[in-house]
Amino acid sequence: MIAMSLLRGRSIPADYIVSGYWSWKSVPEAQREGPVRVIWNGEASGFNCLPSEGELNYGSDAPYFHYVSNETVEGLQFHRLLGTDGVPRICDMSSDLLCRPVPSHRFALMYAHAQKNLGPSGATVVILREDLVRDMRRDLPAMLDYRLHLEHGSIYNTPPVFPIYVILLVTRWLRSEIGGLEKMCEINCRKAERLYSVLDSSGGFYAGRAAARDRSWMNVAFNIHDRKLESLFLSDAETLGFRGLEGHRTIGGLRASLYNAITPEAVDALCSFMKDFQARHAE
Amino acid sequence: MIAMSLLRGRSIPADYIVSGYWSWKSVPEAQREGPVRVIWNGEASGFNCLPSEGELNYGSDAPYFHYVSNETVEGLQFHRLLGTDGVPRICDMSSDLLCRPVPSHRFALMYAHAQKNLGPSGATVVILREDLVRDMRRDLPAMLDYRLHLEHGSIYNTPPVFPIYVILLVTRWLRSEIGGLEKMCEINCRKAERLYSVLDSSGGFYAGRAAARDRSWMNVAFNIHDRKLESLFLSDAETLGFRGLEGHRTIGGLRASLYNAITPEAVDALCSFMKDFQARHAE
Repeated sequence: MIAMSLLRGRSIPADYIVSGYWSWKSVPEAQREGPVRVIWNGEASGFNCLPSEGELNYGSDAPYFHYVSNETVEGLQFHRLLGTDGVPRICDMSSDLLCRPVPSHRFALMYAHAQKNLGPSGATVVILREDLVRDMRRDLPAMLDYRLHLEHGSIYNTPPVFPIYVILLVTRWLRSEIGGLEKMCEINCRKAERLYSVLDSSGGFYAGRAAARDRSWMNVAFNIHDRKLESLFLSDAETLGFRGLEGHRTIGGLRASLYNAITPEAVDALCSFMKDFQARHAE
Repeated sequence: MIAMSLLRGRSIPADYIVSGYWSWKSVPEAQREGPVRVIWNGEASGFNCLPSEGELNYGSDAPYFHYVSNETVEGLQFHRLLGTDGVPRICDMSSDLLCRPVPSHRFALMYAHAQKNLGPSGATVVILREDLVRDMRRDLPAMLDYRLHLEHGSIYNTPPVFPIYVILLVTRWLRSEIGGLEKMCEINCRKAERLYSVLDSSGGFYAGRAAARDRSWMNVAFNIHDRKLESLFLSDAETLGFRGLEGHRTIGGLRASLYNAITPEAVDALCSFMKDFQARHAE
């Protein structure tokens, strides 16, 4: 919808960062609609790090700049704001919206599907700056036209009521139980630090995939040095009730996702299991 | 998606019937993509009846023929199969799928959003004949490409799991509690007959909108002869726990929806209230 609205019929390319599986998938979809300039691509280095600011050469007249704030597959997360204020900043925050405060006024458009930190699958949250719609095409199919949804207060069609209701409950929980996004941010940061410290203090038994400064708080992707132990790790974990620790099917390995709903206690339990597993299997 | 897939770039028009509010809305959306021939339009007569077979002149080489089996706003429902077997038959069954058996093998594509007879809003069921995708365009955005969803077993993306799960429960209920679609059909027919008989035996106090042969089993749209009584009717009904009896905002009046979830007992209660209301207010 973004490329249809803002790139179709344009001659100046939109800027995209390809930092992992999800941003890699966004480029061909945008290219159907108009020209795309990939200003950084981590594919050659196996998506194990993110660009530093000096590596990025933003176009000053691009129709927009697009990036993915957290790459779930590779466990990479930007811990700074990207882009320039002169170009509409568009960010896919599907896997980290509400994990921490964001300077929302500096984004032209943020979007995130619900099924990570927000609620159940079946809804996508889009937060856009109203003036952005001025530059959008006016000939799109109704359901794909942001303007129409905006004009109708997001109920042009019957919305997915149940997922939206759960998102309401989750945001209330964030405010009243957790104490807001800054508190959530602290909790998430602490959860991630604990788990990464198990990797870092394992003497090489475990190895994180991502460069240390680009590590995701949401998805900790790692390997066991002796890869043959990974399936045993998964089955032992399963026995103890830890589920979904296999890496994304495209890259394998192991991955622990630490979304908002994962408690610090659950992370502590995983850390204990991992240390114990290492003690039993280290040579 | 239908017009994008099957009409974009074609020179021979697709055939559409405009039988009410929803089919009327489908035409401009299709016209964005290619030529449309409206083979029947009930707008001039206020959408109070449906075409007889003799009024319809189907194109023999149309890329497809599209109609809406039940018009919720006007309370009109086709009680026969439309179209010819030589042209792909496409039907929007959003408001009556699962209200009765349909000869599904004679449709190229049927679609229905969930929020009438199937389950909660947030999912759309599409049943298509696999050979139809052969004729579909191959350059559509991934999420709008039926072929891709078919190839990925309907889980190319994370689907709306909760609405789909509820649809599963509803279909199980239809089988095991109701006894199948033929039984559901009998129940729905009986519910509708009871309510229409209240209109027909009211001596003109109540008047149904739709021509008798085209009456919908799902949506009974009617008026009170003395229109001034309609707001009183609604508030009296509300007091007794009958909700949602106002007509669609585009045409006003009154409307009782009798979807699968409405029990015969609820219809009986509404009939009693309506007779009672008439007794109190007939001149």
